[in-house]
Amino acid sequence: MSRKNYVHGYTDRESERLADQAQTLTGLLHGDTIYPAGSRVLEAGCGIGAQTVILAANSPHACIISVDISADSLLRAEGAIREKGITNVTFCQGDIFHLPFGPGTFDNIFICFVLEHLSEPQRALERLRPLLKEGGSITVIEGDHGSAFYHPESRFAQRAIDCLVLLQRDMGGNALIGRALYPLMSAAGYENVHVSPRMVYADASRPDLVEGFIRLTFTAMVEGIGEMAQAQGMISREDWEKGIRDLYRTCDTDGVFCYTFFKGTGIRT
Amino acid sequence: MSRKNYVHGYTDRESERLADQAQTLTGLLHGDTIYPAGSRVLEAGCGIGAQTVILAANSPHACIISVDISADSLLRAEGAIREKGITNVTFCQGDIFHLPFGPGTFDNIFICFVLEHLSEPQRALERLRPLLKEGGSITVIEGDHGSAFYHPESRFAQRAIDCLVLLQRDMGGNALIGRALYPLMSAAGYENVHVSPRMVYADASRPDLVEGFIRLTFTAMVEGIGEMAQAQGMISREDWEKGIRDLYRTCDTDGVFCYTFFKGTGIRT
Repeated sequence: MSRKNYVHGYTDRESERLADQAQTLTGLLHGDTIYPAGSRVLEAGCGIGAQTVILAANSPHACIISVDISADSLLRAEGAIREKGITNVTFCQGDIFHLPFGPGTFDNIFICFVLEHLSEPQRALERLRPLLKEGGSITVIEGDHGSAFYHPESRFAQRAIDCLVLLQRDMGGNALIGRALYPLMSAAGYENVHVSPRMVYADASRPDLVEGFIRLTFTAMVEGIGEMAQAQGMISREDWEKGIRDLYRTCDTDGVFCYTFFKGTGIRT
Repeated sequence: MSRKNYVHGYTDRESERLADQAQTLTGLLHGDTIYPAGSRVLEAGCGIGAQTVILAANSPHACIISVDISADSLLRAEGAIREKGITNVTFCQGDIFHLPFGPGTFDNIFICFVLEHLSEPQRALERLRPLLKEGGSITVIEGDHGSAFYHPESRFAQRAIDCLVLLQRDMGGNALIGRALYPLMSAAGYENVHVSPRMVYADASRPDLVEGFIRLTFTAMVEGIGEMAQAQGMISREDWEKGIRDLYRTCDTDGVFCYTFFKGTGIRT
């Protein structure tokens, strides 16, 4: 993806949102990704390092190379790593389709919340595959905004979510990519592909998720594209505000919110 | 629910579908429901016994009383139990809103795929509560047809699913009830309500689920209401056939299907 194609933008609020998201979802998404000491790991598309700090903390003796196309993002990622005192990450600016590494360089590749923003996600996976050693593994994590459902139902909330899906599509991405990880990874030539869904379920008995996921992660993400959606005439200001209000409404004590991430693993044979 | 309000009907094919569904989902939905020896358990709305045989097998020393409003269904349920050689189930015909049991009769209540067909699900839960001893537990399992999403996407498949949701609503039920279990059980006065989602995720690496769930459970269920939906003018025959074809299409090697059940537990204090 070129820098301008990131639907969520590069604001400070977006950086905070990415950090909140990563923290809330650490166990659910990353708990079972632990790389052995000495293994060489490529993080393809590290952004501002929200995932990098978790990855590095979970595998403190792996050697992690994190790449991103945006120099600004890399600066922030370096700052985040330095702040945590993490020393096993090396940053490198580069385009995921033209990375400066030779065949068989890595034991593992990790790519999280990146494919959804690419117009050719299968080709990206194909380009990454030869960078793995034979028997090396790839781990892919993506969300799927079509997996979101909630109580109380609201057609305005649904329209607001649909605006994000459409904007992301207009920019060449696919906000519904999570469900397609299995066929994508298989078509890109990986073997032993295994996909596991990871659902975030939030109701009043789980106040941390209500706050950390419904409010600070999902609704904040949708809210972030409001001006763009209205400027493009996708939705009126009034309907947009109703939609956002109804998303926050699901944080009340009788509200419920469900969202599913997908984590896929595969092997280069 | 009165007998006529069961949207799926009472045909032989529906009985087979219910048995396939129960078998495929046994571990996912029922594996963690095990009642102690000697406990008295009410199964409210046992239908043809698809769940009863699993419940009884998992808790062979509990004393299970299974009720249903339909005498025909009870006959089939009794047959199913007899065929398996199960001896710890007693059947009783009755209306869930007017059961012939005194207060505090049961240690546990189990109710599965029933609330979705009732126009007053909260009142049903309220009527059941006093039948529990103090400290007794209720277990509720429901699906949510709005949780279904799949690859490849298809607006025809979605319309077919929507027909089922609308027909069930017309008959007084709610095919989207799963997401609302937490607020429903809380509002009905149960304490310590805990809801856990149980997602069925099927792709080509899980052929048993592709066959047992996508094909024989979910698509068969939608297919079963085709004549009714067309007779009511909800959808043309051509569009209906496209929808069913596209649902079966998700069984191909590059297809994916996701559906979520919800299991809630609560206590009478």
